[in-house]
Amino acid sequence: MTRLKAALDPRSVAIIGASENPNKVGGRPVHYLDKFGFKGKIFPINPSRSEVQGHKCYKSLADLPEAPDMTIVAVAGDNAIGTVEDCAAHGVKVAVVMASGFGEVDAVAGKAKERRMVEAAHKAGMRIVGPNSQGLANFGTGTIASFSTMFMEMEPSEGQGLVAMLSQSGALSSVPVGFLRQRGIGVRHTHATGNDADITVGELAVAVAEDPEVKLLLLYLESIPDTKYLEELASVALKRDLPIVALKSGRSEAGRQAAQSHTGALANEDRVVDAFFEQHGIWRAPDMRGLVEATELYLKGWKPKGRRLVAISNSGAVCVMTADAATNVGMPMAKLSAETDKKLKGILPSFATTTNPIDLTAALLSNSRLFGDILPVIAEDPAADAFLIGVPVAGPGYDVEAFARDAAAFGKQTGKPLVIAATQKSVADQFAAEGSSVFPTETEAVTALHQFLAHRELMAHIKARQAKAARAPWVPAATTTMLNEADSLALLAERGIPVVPYRLCRSRAEAIAAFETIGGPVVVKGCSADIAHKSELGLVKLGVSSREEAGEVWAQMEAIIRKHGSRFDGVIVAAMAGGRREIMIGAHRDPVFGPVVAVGDGGKYVEIFRDTALLLPPFSKEEAKAALHKLRIAPLFAGVRGEPPMDIEALCDAVMRIGDLMMDPTAKVVSLDLNPVLLDSAGKGCVVVDAVVFQG
Amino acid sequence: MTRLKAALDPRSVAIIGASENPNKVGGRPVHYLDKFGFKGKIFPINPSRSEVQGHKCYKSLADLPEAPDMTIVAVAGDNAIGTVEDCAAHGVKVAVVMASGFGEVDAVAGKAKERRMVEAAHKAGMRIVGPNSQGLANFGTGTIASFSTMFMEMEPSEGQGLVAMLSQSGALSSVPVGFLRQRGIGVRHTHATGNDADITVGELAVAVAEDPEVKLLLLYLESIPDTKYLEELASVALKRDLPIVALKSGRSEAGRQAAQSHTGALANEDRVVDAFFEQHGIWRAPDMRGLVEATELYLKGWKPKGRRLVAISNSGAVCVMTADAATNVGMPMAKLSAETDKKLKGILPSFATTTNPIDLTAALLSNSRLFGDILPVIAEDPAADAFLIGVPVAGPGYDVEAFARDAAAFGKQTGKPLVIAATQKSVADQFAAEGSSVFPTETEAVTALHQFLAHRELMAHIKARQAKAARAPWVPAATTTMLNEADSLALLAERGIPVVPYRLCRSRAEAIAAFETIGGPVVVKGCSADIAHKSELGLVKLGVSSREEAGEVWAQMEAIIRKHGSRFDGVIVAAMAGGRREIMIGAHRDPVFGPVVAVGDGGKYVEIFRDTALLLPPFSKEEAKAALHKLRIAPLFAGVRGEPPMDIEALCDAVMRIGDLMMDPTAKVVSLDLNPVLLDSAGKGCVVVDAVVFQG
Repeated sequence: MTRLKAALDPRSVAIIGASENPNKVGGRPVHYLDKFGFKGKIFPINPSRSEVQGHKCYKSLADLPEAPDMTIVAVAGDNAIGTVEDCAAHGVKVAVVMASGFGEVDAVAGKAKERRMVEAAHKAGMRIVGPNSQGLANFGTGTIASFSTMFMEMEPSEGQGLVAMLSQSGALSSVPVGFLRQRGIGVRHTHATGNDADITVGELAVAVAEDPEVKLLLLYLESIPDTKYLEELASVALKRDLPIVALKSGRSEAGRQAAQSHTGALANEDRVVDAFFEQHGIWRAPDMRGLVEATELYLKGWKPKGRRLVAISNSGAVCVMTADAATNVGMPMAKLSAETDKKLKGILPSFATTTNPIDLTAALLSNSRLFGDILPVIAEDPAADAFLIGVPVAGPGYDVEAFARDAAAFGKQTGKPLVIAATQKSVADQFAAEGSSVFPTETEAVTALHQFLAHRELMAHIKARQAKAARAPWVPAATTTMLNEADSLALLAERGIPVVPYRLCRSRAEAIAAFETIGGPVVVKGCSADIAHKSELGLVKLGVSSREEAGEVWAQMEAIIRKHGSRFDGVIVAAMAGGRREIMIGAHRDPVFGPVVAVGDGGKYVEIFRDTALLLPPFSKEEAKAALHKLRIAPLFAGVRGEPPMDIEALCDAVMRIGDLMMDPTAKVVSLDLNPVLLDSAGKGCVVVDAVVFQG
Repeated sequence: MTRLKAALDPRSVAIIGASENPNKVGGRPVHYLDKFGFKGKIFPINPSRSEVQGHKCYKSLADLPEAPDMTIVAVAGDNAIGTVEDCAAHGVKVAVVMASGFGEVDAVAGKAKERRMVEAAHKAGMRIVGPNSQGLANFGTGTIASFSTMFMEMEPSEGQGLVAMLSQSGALSSVPVGFLRQRGIGVRHTHATGNDADITVGELAVAVAEDPEVKLLLLYLESIPDTKYLEELASVALKRDLPIVALKSGRSEAGRQAAQSHTGALANEDRVVDAFFEQHGIWRAPDMRGLVEATELYLKGWKPKGRRLVAISNSGAVCVMTADAATNVGMPMAKLSAETDKKLKGILPSFATTTNPIDLTAALLSNSRLFGDILPVIAEDPAADAFLIGVPVAGPGYDVEAFARDAAAFGKQTGKPLVIAATQKSVADQFAAEGSSVFPTETEAVTALHQFLAHRELMAHIKARQAKAARAPWVPAATTTMLNEADSLALLAERGIPVVPYRLCRSRAEAIAAFETIGGPVVVKGCSADIAHKSELGLVKLGVSSREEAGEVWAQMEAIIRKHGSRFDGVIVAAMAGGRREIMIGAHRDPVFGPVVAVGDGGKYVEIFRDTALLLPPFSKEEAKAALHKLRIAPLFAGVRGEPPMDIEALCDAVMRIGDLMMDPTAKVVSLDLNPVLLDSAGKGCVVVDAVVFQG
């Protein structure tokens, strides 16, 4: 670790506000540094003591024999400000500020105090963790600069794990550690960064991701104020094949409100968060259990080839429920070969089931060898990507020890992912003792297995994707301008996006000429950069079918626009475009995540049904296609009820071009709304009929 | 218990195939009857022993001093058949047949063997449980006629619980018991009925539901071959306010296939199962954990008034995640009164949050009284229906004992549902010791609480509903007949369902007259009971706008029908109906659940999008409305984008009438398909445009 070394691997730590009592905020870090084997120097600072927990105690920073790499600021409230300034003045490299009562309480005055501390620090080249931080804990180096009570319960050896947990919240830095401990999984890092006034959870995560001992990185985020470090983190992690699982709370409106009233956190648009994580190969956990549930599977070193499941149980009910659970998460059941079936039939009794899921029945009770006999047969089947063995109940009469041994041997033999669903503790313990990953029910086993496999698939996909141009740092102007429809269409056409044939007519004569060129019937639309809602003013006329009518409507529309005192940019005469489905393409710039493109079912009720998928540019045509296939209307694209397929290639090309347009700083597009885009049958393309573009 | 008394509370039990070894199938029941305090007589039967596990052993049934109420048939395979016949001949009341290798293995020969046993039994007035049954276990009477290994681990006192578990599967009769044991919850009954050749799991459940000690009944079902006992069970349970939670597996196609290949189980249509359970106040659990997770809450005796949640935590992150979890399950957060807010502000430090969810912050560490001080204030707020207290991490420094005591006292004071989310075992244990219901995460706590409250709400709703006419026992004929469209429309019109104005015209002159009466433009459609797909044959012509054209089209359609050699029933001339949304109403008769009505979004893609809700008649207009509001298109009904609301009253009336029609044996309707039904604005009604009715 070279980044933030003073935070993760300091040579010396001073505790300002050190306490003799290991149950106080200022006492715990001293206790923990000792307990977890910190090798550097420990300097307690407390003007009223000469010794703290067996260490020589100093009156102030000035009294120390050397400038410490790290200070832990365990003084309360505003006293922390002066202390931080003092640290900066004395050559400290990192200050971990535990005091609370800053930005999380008062978004104005509190944040101002934070800025004062950070400015003082930066002037002296010091960095700050916090304030309102529960602290950092790197068990790899014994740097436990934290007041979490959790570590009181832990044995020093427990910290030698392969997992790193990073969180803004203190509770959420400890809770997952507790969960994992109960499963016998150690955590190497757990850091709570608090208000992120200087070092953010993202920046710290990048440093932690460089620790080669870390094999899985878990994140809890309450808000994502910027993506810089998360993008770097994802890139560092993908390079060294380090999976990242993130829990971002505030999914719901009620959750976002709670987050804002508690911490003043910026509310992120949740679907954009989903798209961002997916684009960076980060798995988004739905809740706290989802954050940790698959941990063991990530640490096995498996290299899965696919996601097809084979399930084996001595209970038919567990077989049925496993198939239900697999379907529910979108995991296919493997179709075993005829050869496998034949071999299984030779081993199993006639009343067992040889199709997947494989029901051994209670015959297992009378023949403990069944298990060991069939597993090698199944292992050889090329359709089997992963396995679940369900042993819901067993007791005296079942040779559970042999099952557990056979299962573990099978797992080693295949090298393929294997999970056990065992409800009874006595049974689960025996499988776990042999090194298998055990879950209490088939639902949990399948859910965790699916997460691991799907996440690995996602990471492989993201890795395979060609490196894309970095996101343009373009910041739109504060004021935005609406282009009139003709300019909007022209901008799109320039970028190779098909738009309806049209003419912008400045005179009645031009309208008549346009009618003759395009051929009737046509659509006639008034054009003004001042008017967003044309229909409501009578500025859209469909089915204009003669040259005289075209001229007449031109004149009417000019009159309407002028009467409204709006700029008269002309009148558009356009072809009546054909197509089979109204699609919408929209794009905007998220203040945090940058350009976002939405594509989905169009028409009148687009806002009601919201059958749209989000894409963060830059993205490929294939990624656009994958997004389209998530839509509810996706089945229509292939053609249903005897209809021909639709021109998805053309639509994906248009969507990708919109993504490129949003990335191009010279285009200055802030947002756009294309609705409808008429999608026609394969080979017949798609065409933008209405367009509004805002530039900034 | 009067029903099936010999199965649940026999005066004597004979074990045929009794073994000295308590780890064998024939040994376990003897061991268990002793262990769990069975008060009746125990008669082991085994020709080769004089004593079994300290009991006098008999050579055969004929040697017994009296006819036993119950026999346990623990002999293998086909030997069981003769043994059952022997039991019947000797005056046994119930035989529990554990032997397997019957219908679950071979749907033809195996089922035939089962029928032979049942016939022999019924002739002598004997009943059978099984075959392929793991056995019955009534801890209330000590009647443990089971070979489940699970009970080896249990202490006799553990069986004095308030929960009954009934299952067709052996594993699923034991697994939930194991789950509940781990939570310290005893089970009074757990029965595995196996192949249900005679006594079904439903019939046994009705008997168990009459045990006044049972406060919660859990069911595992792999297939529902008929609804008779389930309906009776639901009725008995509702009368005594006994909640039923059911896990019906085979939700997915893969699960149904697994169930069929394992047990030859009949596949139920899953959405109809959902509708059936809901109609009977039975909560459907999604999986095994869902079956047991809320058990503790049902046993508290709470009488909830609503579902609005108040959450309190010392962690802001837990507050946010609780709000997310509540939104996810559809539970509203309570809006606390201004008075409550004022009082809380007087107690809590300035940096805490007084809006719901209430974040006490780490201030709890320095002031353990906070908890005890704010709870009584919140308890008084009328908006609070239920509470969640989240204490994710605590250790030395926190007075967890006081929190646990305060929480329990608060729960008692309010009498309202309260759950605790505590991840750390040391914390969870202290809350549990005070009698609170503790879950490891907020997601699990909220999910269980929501289940309990929503289930109680459902039960109250079903109870409040007026008793409906029993389902007609009408069985449709084996062959069904399609009505032609005119007859289909006439049948609907007779029942007060609005249909499009139409005339069936037998001649060209009648067609011209119909045009003049209805007024053009009209739709003209060929009518034949032999032709289902009219459009494909050119038998639908829209927008016919003159009397001459009407006559001409009549003649063309007559020619087409006659050319196809189909019956010529005439030509329909109908009005061009108006309306704003195409709705579909369908109905069919499920072989198990009887009439089912589907209503939803109509149009061309009805089969693709399947935005439909199911209703089991008889149902009220209000229930039809509730079903319509589950649809994806539901927001349109109220009017969006400035549109007026639609005529949902008229639509619900039509749907209810379809339900009544399906219940009426005189109508003989087997299935019908009305698509589209054109739904118009409020006050303008809805109208059936196309209809196909099948009678049987």
